[in-house]
Amino acid sequence: MKVTHNGKELDIRALWMEGSKVRFIDQKILPHRFEFVDASTVEEVARFIEDMTVRGAPSIGAAGAYGMAMAQITDMDLAEAAKRLKRTRPTAFDLFYGVDSMLATASEGRDLVEAAEKYVTQIAEKCRKIGEHGNSLIKDGFTILTHCNAGALATIDYGTALSPIRAAHKGGKKIHVFADETRPRLQGAALTSWELVQEGIPHDIIPDNAAGHFMQRGEIDMVIVGADRIAANGDFANKIGTYEKAVCAKENGVPFYTAAPVSTFDFSLASGMDIPIEERSQDEVRYVGKELICPEKATARNPAFDMTPARYVTGIITEAGIFKPGELKRENLQ
Amino acid sequence: MKVTHNGKELDIRALWMEGSKVRFIDQKILPHRFEFVDASTVEEVARFIEDMTVRGAPSIGAAGAYGMAMAQITDMDLAEAAKRLKRTRPTAFDLFYGVDSMLATASEGRDLVEAAEKYVTQIAEKCRKIGEHGNSLIKDGFTILTHCNAGALATIDYGTALSPIRAAHKGGKKIHVFADETRPRLQGAALTSWELVQEGIPHDIIPDNAAGHFMQRGEIDMVIVGADRIAANGDFANKIGTYEKAVCAKENGVPFYTAAPVSTFDFSLASGMDIPIEERSQDEVRYVGKELICPEKATARNPAFDMTPARYVTGIITEAGIFKPGELKRENLQ
Repeated sequence: MKVTHNGKELDIRALWMEGSKVRFIDQKILPHRFEFVDASTVEEVARFIEDMTVRGAPSIGAAGAYGMAMAQITDMDLAEAAKRLKRTRPTAFDLFYGVDSMLATASEGRDLVEAAEKYVTQIAEKCRKIGEHGNSLIKDGFTILTHCNAGALATIDYGTALSPIRAAHKGGKKIHVFADETRPRLQGAALTSWELVQEGIPHDIIPDNAAGHFMQRGEIDMVIVGADRIAANGDFANKIGTYEKAVCAKENGVPFYTAAPVSTFDFSLASGMDIPIEERSQDEVRYVGKELICPEKATARNPAFDMTPARYVTGIITEAGIFKPGELKRENLQ
Repeated sequence: MKVTHNGKELDIRALWMEGSKVRFIDQKILPHRFEFVDASTVEEVARFIEDMTVRGAPSIGAAGAYGMAMAQITDMDLAEAAKRLKRTRPTAFDLFYGVDSMLATASEGRDLVEAAEKYVTQIAEKCRKIGEHGNSLIKDGFTILTHCNAGALATIDYGTALSPIRAAHKGGKKIHVFADETRPRLQGAALTSWELVQEGIPHDIIPDNAAGHFMQRGEIDMVIVGADRIAANGDFANKIGTYEKAVCAKENGVPFYTAAPVSTFDFSLASGMDIPIEERSQDEVRYVGKELICPEKATARNPAFDMTPARYVTGIITEAGIFKPGELKRENLQ
């Protein structure tokens, strides 16, 4: 991703290995400050995952893989390192995948720095390809709505939903983005907007409430969002609010796409209603930063994800091409 | 409305006249502090409208009427007073109506304190009747979604959308309310929740993004919202986000009602697409309180209202009964 830092234009990833350290963009303090932080021990990597210095499933998976490489360099017990890294966050499948694949590689006596680098580069490459495929759907002059942050910060580089947008902009198409602010954690306003500012991609932040209005007025040509898990029938879970936008898109004839690597498909689930929905702390709703926005006594509900049925999905943009929901089968990938 | 203040339970309105003063609940500082402020001059009333100490169209209309009464008491030129009061806020039709009807009353040589009191009491009485009619739709055990604040604070007493909820609770029905927080200005989290806390009505604040999810999961039995203007065909404008909730309600078979006095109908407009949509300062989106939630350079769009087509509306709850969209005609009211 493009980042301008101290007047210099950089092309960097959300995290990478530099010698025996892992260097992270500190996502906790964006968009107001841009700083790198380094981890020199497995414990430090684990803490950066826990405190959300690094977030987004693929980026967390990368942190897990690099953490295992660091364990090998520092002669730490690999099983111990794996245990510590996997104890950080419970839901991101990529974390377990990244750590376990490094454990398997080590058992073959191979070098983990090289293996982790390969693993991370493969993720970035998948995201780049998602951008290439998705770009074919974007016409010059399009206004594209996105929700939450499915950008380079979350996915090492390029992003999933943001990758086609980056590719279209880079290819000279004149596009405009509406970024849903994405309450309660505001990743759209804080992170997606930051990435778009860095790339110089024209955009406006909108309240989540306003997406339907702009669709009704014909101001949105397509919607692209990410996905946290996709069931075999094409139903998918993503950040809370995705479902509302999908329903409004269908109602207004606006094409609605989700962008995700094939690894996001969970063929063991027949339908999206089987995807568990995490409910997070009510204080994420009750507070914005340090501001309490409601009466002290008031309670809140805070489902972190919702489920969008396949019937609202125009297509799923993957590194292997664009598929209709339900079209991609486990058999086709074997 | 019920308010517990300094350990005492009060039954009060959003504003009222006390001797030669107008006393307001200071809505600017809710929900964190509950205080009254008094206006002793027309200029002070005008400033309280301007700085949103009092908000909500019917409550602003009441402030305008009381301001005219105060002008008469203090021997101020009534035309001057009317001019000053009408210069405060541009959109609320009720303000002009309240001020002008007092001007007309004065020209008949009548007492404005008495006339203003009658005007304000009529509004409260309409809201009470909206509650009575709307209550007939609420079954014991219902969970009701509402959006923004169409409560007693906005409408002198009872509220429009909140009036049926108050009536159901008072009548002993076991109900639960989901209050959309209602970005960008968060009137749901700040004001609706405050009113519900005061009345002891069980509720949760939810991110606007979560309303669709809860409908999909069968956790919402009906939706009641307010209305800023209703066109002749039953299309209506209301706080931004209302449209998204209406579309999701229809998709999930959840009954969707708007509650408003008959005076909200604008029979001069054939369709809701003729209702102008105010776009407000982008800083209402970029900031929450003093927190900047996005990059310094980022811009935002901020439509304050949206338009919900009549086909999404199950019924319109008025003081004259419950109507299907388009059923209430100008002819029927004459």
